[in-house]
Amino acid sequence: MRILTGIQASGRPHLGNILGAIKPAIQLSKNPNNESFLFIADLHTLTSLKDGKQLRENTYAIAAAWLACGFDADKNFFYRQSKLAGYHTELMWYLNCFTPFPMLANAHSFKDKSEKLADVNAGLFTYPVLQAADIMLYDAHLVPVGKDQRQHLEMTRDLGGAFNRQYGEDTLILPEAKIDESVMTIPGIDGQKMSKSLNNYIDIFLNEKDLLKVVKKVVTDATPLEDPKNPDTDNVFKLYSLVANPDEIAEMRQNYLAGGYGYGHAKNALHTVLVREFAEEREKFDYYMNHIEELEEKLQAGEAKAEVIAKATMERVRNRMNL
Amino acid sequence: MRILTGIQASGRPHLGNILGAIKPAIQLSKNPNNESFLFIADLHTLTSLKDGKQLRENTYAIAAAWLACGFDADKNFFYRQSKLAGYHTELMWYLNCFTPFPMLANAHSFKDKSEKLADVNAGLFTYPVLQAADIMLYDAHLVPVGKDQRQHLEMTRDLGGAFNRQYGEDTLILPEAKIDESVMTIPGIDGQKMSKSLNNYIDIFLNEKDLLKVVKKVVTDATPLEDPKNPDTDNVFKLYSLVANPDEIAEMRQNYLAGGYGYGHAKNALHTVLVREFAEEREKFDYYMNHIEELEEKLQAGEAKAEVIAKATMERVRNRMNL
Repeated sequence: MRILTGIQASGRPHLGNILGAIKPAIQLSKNPNNESFLFIADLHTLTSLKDGKQLRENTYAIAAAWLACGFDADKNFFYRQSKLAGYHTELMWYLNCFTPFPMLANAHSFKDKSEKLADVNAGLFTYPVLQAADIMLYDAHLVPVGKDQRQHLEMTRDLGGAFNRQYGEDTLILPEAKIDESVMTIPGIDGQKMSKSLNNYIDIFLNEKDLLKVVKKVVTDATPLEDPKNPDTDNVFKLYSLVANPDEIAEMRQNYLAGGYGYGHAKNALHTVLVREFAEEREKFDYYMNHIEELEEKLQAGEAKAEVIAKATMERVRNRMNL
Repeated sequence: MRILTGIQASGRPHLGNILGAIKPAIQLSKNPNNESFLFIADLHTLTSLKDGKQLRENTYAIAAAWLACGFDADKNFFYRQSKLAGYHTELMWYLNCFTPFPMLANAHSFKDKSEKLADVNAGLFTYPVLQAADIMLYDAHLVPVGKDQRQHLEMTRDLGGAFNRQYGEDTLILPEAKIDESVMTIPGIDGQKMSKSLNNYIDIFLNEKDLLKVVKKVVTDATPLEDPKNPDTDNVFKLYSLVANPDEIAEMRQNYLAGGYGYGHAKNALHTVLVREFAEEREKFDYYMNHIEELEEKLQAGEAKAEVIAKATMERVRNRMNL
């Protein structure tokens, strides 16, 4: 089974990304029956970020984070979309010719974004078509997506279906969405869903001192140190519960309920388990960021592997189209 | 000076195309200071024509017609856009990210077409961006266009300008439009402008018998054979004047004014000069259509030459973008 995941090159992943998306994706990729296609969607990122230096820094940080979290780039497919841009965009063009204008104009994502953004460009408008190409270029069977991406997966199937009706039923493989309803929502330091745009995220790749600064900002209520506290409504405890081991969690719960244990203590404990539980990831991340040439090597090897698949798909597509 | 012309792969060129566009373009290409980039815009054609067999037949007919009319494919650049699709569409994507959505939504061409066509697809919507890529991919300086394409050339310059402001002033070359105000309007067999869509065209590559059938359909008034006729309002005379030599034209004018000379005579004379004046083109056209392998050879050689330029441009573009 081919499983495909694209990651926006919008900065390094935070704790929410790691627990909610990266770790589950890596788990899936370890199944020996699966081949994982993991790519950095830098062509998509260009719709909002034009600065080349920033884009490159983000790309390396994302690649380093995935490798640090245990993604096996040698067994799977790991590549930058931009390095295979010709294949992605050529298939996109063919799909463009099968994309009804109203399908894009009425897409949720476009309506949402065109209300919020100053720069509403044609890239943003047509990105679901590029996304369809990203998926079908590699004959992906399964695409793990959030509920907000369900419509785009349906578009991909619609476009692939229309294309196949014209050029032959088995030209493109129609992917299934894997929508995990039970997906964890990781709270940010303010208790809302952790997200880059809300600026409430914990970057576990910070040095210990800066990481502590962020942990100290987790929002709590004003219960005095000596009073008992409710662990089930507290953000520090919620975050701690996601990372610490069961004994530690039980102990902190006791401390909360007993009183005489302040949020400052809890924050220090959270910082300690973050540093401990992500020790390997933090070390590997630093290593890759200090050895960009090794990142490049892994990415280039992945791009060479991915190109074999992309080339074969495009040959099949062009043959069917009689081009 | 690099001059670029794209031709829709919508069927073989008719007399109006040949006199109004092909012959003047070939004239320009003979200037030793010019390099002509002539390409069959089959990616654009896909926005309206999906049938691969038809597309390929059209492509060969167009290639044969241009070569038959004297285009020197060896000196110039002669290629199918689809054979370099990855380069065209990759540059298109980058330009998409600089294309304000309203620029496309308000384009004349889109408004016109979206009112007329049942299939309004994303390819049709974004084709001015692909056109911009087609031009700037080859560092073209000059693009001969009709007045209806003036807006698209301005878009190309706008997009190239926006791209250059981000990535460096000399990244893309902004083309100039060459709008020939004096361009001949060739009348069709009904006196309106000759055009494929009005189905009033003369296909000079038909066999003599079928060509005569078309010439016989030229619309005339009902003046009896014996009466004098007005050459300046007659379609047969107008067409004859575009093809015959000055002595012949003067002689036919005399015949019209004198009377006793019918439209049937004039039509036979028109047929005779068409066959005579386009004898070489007709022969060469038939030759190429019976030797597709030679057409393929010329196109493939042209595509290899064009790819060198396209590759160099894209390397420059990607370097500037830091991709």
